[in-house]
Amino acid sequence: MHTIKELSNLINDRIQAININKEPKELYDPIIYTLEGGGKRLRPVSMLLACDTYGGKVEDAVNPAMGIEIFHNFTLLHDDIMDQAPLRRGRETVYKKWDNNVAILSGDTMFAVAYDYIRQTRNELVPEIMKIFCQTSIEVCEGQQYDMNFETTENTTIPEYLNMIRLKTAVALAASMEIGASIAGADRVEKETIYKFGEHLGMAFQLQDDLLDTFGDQEKFGKKIGGDILANKKTYIYLKALELANNEQKDVLRNLYMSKSSDPEEKISKVKAIFRELNIPAQAENIINDYFSKAMECFNKLNVEPDKKMGLKEFAYMILRRDM
Amino acid sequence: MHTIKELSNLINDRIQAININKEPKELYDPIIYTLEGGGKRLRPVSMLLACDTYGGKVEDAVNPAMGIEIFHNFTLLHDDIMDQAPLRRGRETVYKKWDNNVAILSGDTMFAVAYDYIRQTRNELVPEIMKIFCQTSIEVCEGQQYDMNFETTENTTIPEYLNMIRLKTAVALAASMEIGASIAGADRVEKETIYKFGEHLGMAFQLQDDLLDTFGDQEKFGKKIGGDILANKKTYIYLKALELANNEQKDVLRNLYMSKSSDPEEKISKVKAIFRELNIPAQAENIINDYFSKAMECFNKLNVEPDKKMGLKEFAYMILRRDM
Repeated sequence: MHTIKELSNLINDRIQAININKEPKELYDPIIYTLEGGGKRLRPVSMLLACDTYGGKVEDAVNPAMGIEIFHNFTLLHDDIMDQAPLRRGRETVYKKWDNNVAILSGDTMFAVAYDYIRQTRNELVPEIMKIFCQTSIEVCEGQQYDMNFETTENTTIPEYLNMIRLKTAVALAASMEIGASIAGADRVEKETIYKFGEHLGMAFQLQDDLLDTFGDQEKFGKKIGGDILANKKTYIYLKALELANNEQKDVLRNLYMSKSSDPEEKISKVKAIFRELNIPAQAENIINDYFSKAMECFNKLNVEPDKKMGLKEFAYMILRRDM
Repeated sequence: MHTIKELSNLINDRIQAININKEPKELYDPIIYTLEGGGKRLRPVSMLLACDTYGGKVEDAVNPAMGIEIFHNFTLLHDDIMDQAPLRRGRETVYKKWDNNVAILSGDTMFAVAYDYIRQTRNELVPEIMKIFCQTSIEVCEGQQYDMNFETTENTTIPEYLNMIRLKTAVALAASMEIGASIAGADRVEKETIYKFGEHLGMAFQLQDDLLDTFGDQEKFGKKIGGDILANKKTYIYLKALELANNEQKDVLRNLYMSKSSDPEEKISKVKAIFRELNIPAQAENIINDYFSKAMECFNKLNVEPDKKMGLKEFAYMILRRDM
């Protein structure tokens, strides 16, 4: 069995050693730049962990794990064009540093490179892994489209929002774990259960990320607090606040979320004040706990000796920033 | 054995019946619109033909053939954003009809859908087909990058241009044929030979397309003559003209290719006059004939009974608009 730290180091080493310093440079330089940008490597680590949990050879899962990480970075690269985001992980985004065309085409190439890594495992595993990955990459695109739609639609509902984050974030974690288990030869029921474990965990993770974006500790969270409020993002906490607000609070919230001109710090503190009045942090904790509990129910069903699945449990607690 | 017409109808029927009328509509409508736009279906037909030539079941190759066609249409969709092309096959391009973001994301989804079709064949074939397709899709992106680079670089050479069209156009035809042969169980030498056949044929096809863009008959060619000249495209015929031109002709050509203000018809006729003075149509015919001869050398090496490979020969003559 390997520790999370070991698996994380393994992925980082392999990504650093990746050989795409090729011609034409205009195409490959932005890819190298993107992969150097770091990131938590949650998806590849979860794939390796799942493989290790079921007694598979971690080496068989390393290329698909790199594939899922390259895919994730491709989606960020294209999302940054669509969202016109100037910064990613503290550095200029590709479309800002180069231009739109470079970002589109180097992104497309990354997507192809991702598939090229995903397929590099034992031959007999390729058809199943490809099926899971194709389905997942289509769903992630659907999630991004819903996310963009929500920017311009008036009445996004909480179930619609939850479905969006399921597609945009949770299914990739779920698929990573399923692919890892599949490489280790786990049976159908196990693969379905670990997929659901990853999906619920991914939901809890994204909802927690939304909560921390507004109510986190800037130093621990690692990015500026209030970003979602300034971007008028209709996250769970905003939608839940609208649901619970009286008419007056609704008007204030809606007006704040339509204005672009007001002082940013003032806007953040006004919105947070209403969220607090409505007890939104506790509401968000409730739904995060619900998903986390569902994830742990799936975890408990996994038919693996308890000591062999401790890595997965540790991973779940780690990404949810909880003590075990 | 099936005729080209039958195989072409089969692909068109399957593409019409494709079921991607799904949610979110903003994502899938542009995909349906793009696939409805028609096209010559050269790549999927060549895949089915290659499979049929080696006695494979055409049905095993239909999904991968649709995959290669969907991939081709994805590249056109993203190329149209990068080239800011307003029209494609007589209709508004996706980025014009919708917007940039829709075109980026529905293109990404098409790429994923393409992979999802490519993988849908007999399990034992998937690893090899995926390997060929991943390699090819990366090369097509490289070709598009070189094409964009040439717009702003001064001294593109003929070998560089030929390598660009090899990557951007020829390898996809080559890979289609190799995949078709692979599905039919052809051996390594046969697969390598049919790949080269497709590659040389693809080169001849693109060079002929360049020639017809300037010297073709508008009605037969199906698009407006002189488009490449107006877009200042540094195609083979332009580069060959520069190579053969005296200093005075060079200056005139370079000035015409830098100007955007002059009358379009006048520009086309001035450029064509110089091309004719330099005997460029015959020069282009020479290189087209060279590639076509190389293709037919490979064709002759294919270890298949003569009557079984007539379909491939017919296809080669058809796309080169020659009488057999």
